[in-house]
Order: sequence, then structure tokens, then C-alpha cells
Amino acid sequence: MEKKKAVILVSGGMDSAVCLYWAMAKGYDCQALSFDYGQRHRRELGFAERLCRRAGVPRRTVRLRLPWLKTNALNNRRMKIPARKLKVIAADGIPPTYVPGRNTVFLSLAMSLSDATGASAIVIGANALDFSGYPDCRPAFYRAFQRVLMRGSRSAAQGRGIRVLAPLLRLSKAQIVRLGRRLGVPLDTTWSCYAGRARPCGRCDACLLRAKGFREA
Amino acid sequence: MEKKKAVILVSGGMDSAVCLYWAMAKGYDCQALSFDYGQRHRRELGFAERLCRRAGVPRRTVRLRLPWLKTNALNNRRMKIPARKLKVIAADGIPPTYVPGRNTVFLSLAMSLSDATGASAIVIGANALDFSGYPDCRPAFYRAFQRVLMRGSRSAAQGRGIRVLAPLLRLSKAQIVRLGRRLGVPLDTTWSCYAGRARPCGRCDACLLRAKGFREA
Repeated sequence: MEKKKAVILVSGGMDSAVCLYWAMAKGYDCQALSFDYGQRHRRELGFAERLCRRAGVPRRTVRLRLPWLKTNALNNRRMKIPARKLKVIAADGIPPTYVPGRNTVFLSLAMSLSDATGASAIVIGANALDFSGYPDCRPAFYRAFQRVLMRGSRSAAQGRGIRVLAPLLRLSKAQIVRLGRRLGVPLDTTWSCYAGRARPCGRCDACLLRAKGFREA
Repeated sequence: MEKKKAVILVSGGMDSAVCLYWAMAKGYDCQALSFDYGQRHRRELGFAERLCRRAGVPRRTVRLRLPWLKTNALNNRRMKIPARKLKVIAADGIPPTYVPGRNTVFLSLAMSLSDATGASAIVIGANALDFSGYPDCRPAFYRAFQRVLMRGSRSAAQGRGIRVLAPLLRLSKAQIVRLGRRLGVPLDTTWSCYAGRARPCGRCDACLLRAKGFREA
């Protein structure tokens, strides 16, 4: 029997690396999809490349030049990446690192690739700790996008369909680290820092959450 | 009072031209968004440019290089654009000119632009005659995408929101032509043919539907 195919959104960070190994463990025939969207931490793409090579998974990078993205701190080097206390992350309001529509754009391109290649799943590493701040990391957002997949794809029109899977959605960072270790993910071949310098800053949300995860795991 | 802003998806074809003038007539402050996705009828983009210049509307083009799109007739010059009888269009099955996930990708990038610039509406020229064949031209698809806008955007999280408007969805081509004339759309500054040669082929779906529209209007 032919293996089911999946498109995995691989950023180069820890969460998407765990997703990739999770999908491989589930028996999917995986292809990775990465995005160069002008993020200041573009260095993550080198980690994505090494990770996928190590896992033996083919990978594509889509280049997006969206000049209107200069209004957020992940795309604009002149804006400050906030060095926040972890407790602030859970508060209301959207962080300056929110990239407008990012996950919707990523999922829509993954949908296009899935619909063109017959993949039945899209795997994304969104997780619980993010969704207090980012509207496109909430469970309700993924349910909504699932409906788009059911209504707008050829695959669904032909009775097969594409599912969006976010296996880390309700896990803590510590649980993600433990899952990654169990699955044999080379966690040293991942990059989380938003600042995009040669070494992790140790102060941004991504660094703090990652450190907390490792500490607690 | 500040005018409401809208992002109009402008392909260079008749339907999106009518949408642009419709949105202007509704009082929106319009910005146009076009896509160069390797379509063989890329010549439509020159029409989009002339149309927007004439309307005094700023326009952006996003370039998408998606190698997996080579499996459909709109992106692959080696595939035949079907010269179909109009009655076949309403039959079941998805035409070879279906571009996987295209409208989802277009809407998601329009969402990103809207969320970054404070636009409250996205206007798309999808219409009734198409949706028998294209899954992403059906009313249910637009309802599903509206939910994504409600769940995944900063604008919605802040209580404003973005609406997706498809004013031509239930109109016939003849009604679109009449609406265009009423709105003063320069219909000669639009391009519909899929084949992408110097003159319209007169045989593809797009040509046939356009001709039928003019004849009946």
C-alpha cells in the first residue's frame, strides 16, 4: 500500500522539528516546506536544511517578498524584539512579533502543495503557549482553516480531503522537549531565537520559552 | 471621517476590473493586489497595471514561484487549454485550468496586506459561472475563509475585522458586463483569455464566457 503523504511546515525551530519526526513516526511520506519571508532570523533556514537532510526528507523553500510586512519586529531589524518576562506572554494583546496573516499564508501554500501532490495532511508546529498572543495560533483558527481545506481543495471535491494537524497545539514547551527526545529529534539542529544574530539572544520570547522547556523537561 | 480601506484582487480580467470600480463606487479607499504566479496569460498583468493607473489606484504585484503548479494548464504551456462548449462548464469535475489552492493563497496574502494596513475588506471577482468547476469559487468556500479572517487576524482580535466580499458571486457574465458599463469600467482595458498569446484565442472558457456576456448584455 502506498504511504500517506504529508506536507510539514519546517521553520528550523524546535517545534517544527518535533512535528517532522512526529509525522515520520506516524508513517507519513513527508515533504518539508519552508518560507523565506524576510524574517530577520533567516538563519533558521540553514537549520531547517540540515535537519531535513539528516532526516532524509525533501524540502522546498518558498520565497515571499511582502513589503507590507515591515511593520512587525520579526521582519524589521529597526524594531526591538521585546525581551519579555514569561508571565507577560499570557497577557492580552498581540505581541509586536506578530506577522500579519503569517500562518494563514503558510497554510494556504501548504494547501496548494498538498492539493497538487496528493498529500492528505499538513502538519504545523503551532503550540499552546503562543496562542494567548498570536490570533493564528489558536485552536479555533485551525478549525476554521480546516473548513477552508474541506471547501476549497480539489482533494476534498474528489472525496479524499486534506487535514491540518497541529500535534503540539496543547503541549507545554517541556512536553514538546520530552516528545522530541522520545522521537529522537536532533534538538541541537534547531534554532529558536527571533533576533537573528550568530548566537541566541537568550532574552526574546522564543529563547525564554525554549530554555524553560529544557529546564522543566 | 477616514474612508474605509479595501484590498481588491485585480488580475487584469473583466471581473476583477468590475470589482475594483464597484469598491470605488462603494466609497472604499482602494489598493489593488496582483499576482505573478507563472500564469501563461501573464499578459493580463499589463492590463491590471493600465486599469489601475487609469483608476488612480495604487497596485502591488506579489511574485510567487511555486514549482508544483506545473501540473495545471494555466501554468504549463505544454498542457492544452481546453476549448470547451459552454454547456460542459456546468458539468461535474474540476477543469484542467484549476490551479491548486490558488484563491486560498490569493486571499491569504490579501489578508496579510489587510491586517498590516488596516483594510476592512477584501474584494474578489469570483463568480457564479466558475463555481461548478472550481472548488474555490463556491459560496461555501468564501464563508469558510471569512471564518479564518474572524479567527486568525489581528484586526478581528482587536474587534474590527476584515470582510471578504465577492460581489459578482451570483451574477451571470451578462449581468457583470451590464454592471461594468453602469460603473464606467473601461472594459477594453481588461484581458480574459487563458492562452496568453498576443490576441485572445476565442476558444477557451474565459473567452467563451466573456463573449457570451457581451452578446447577452
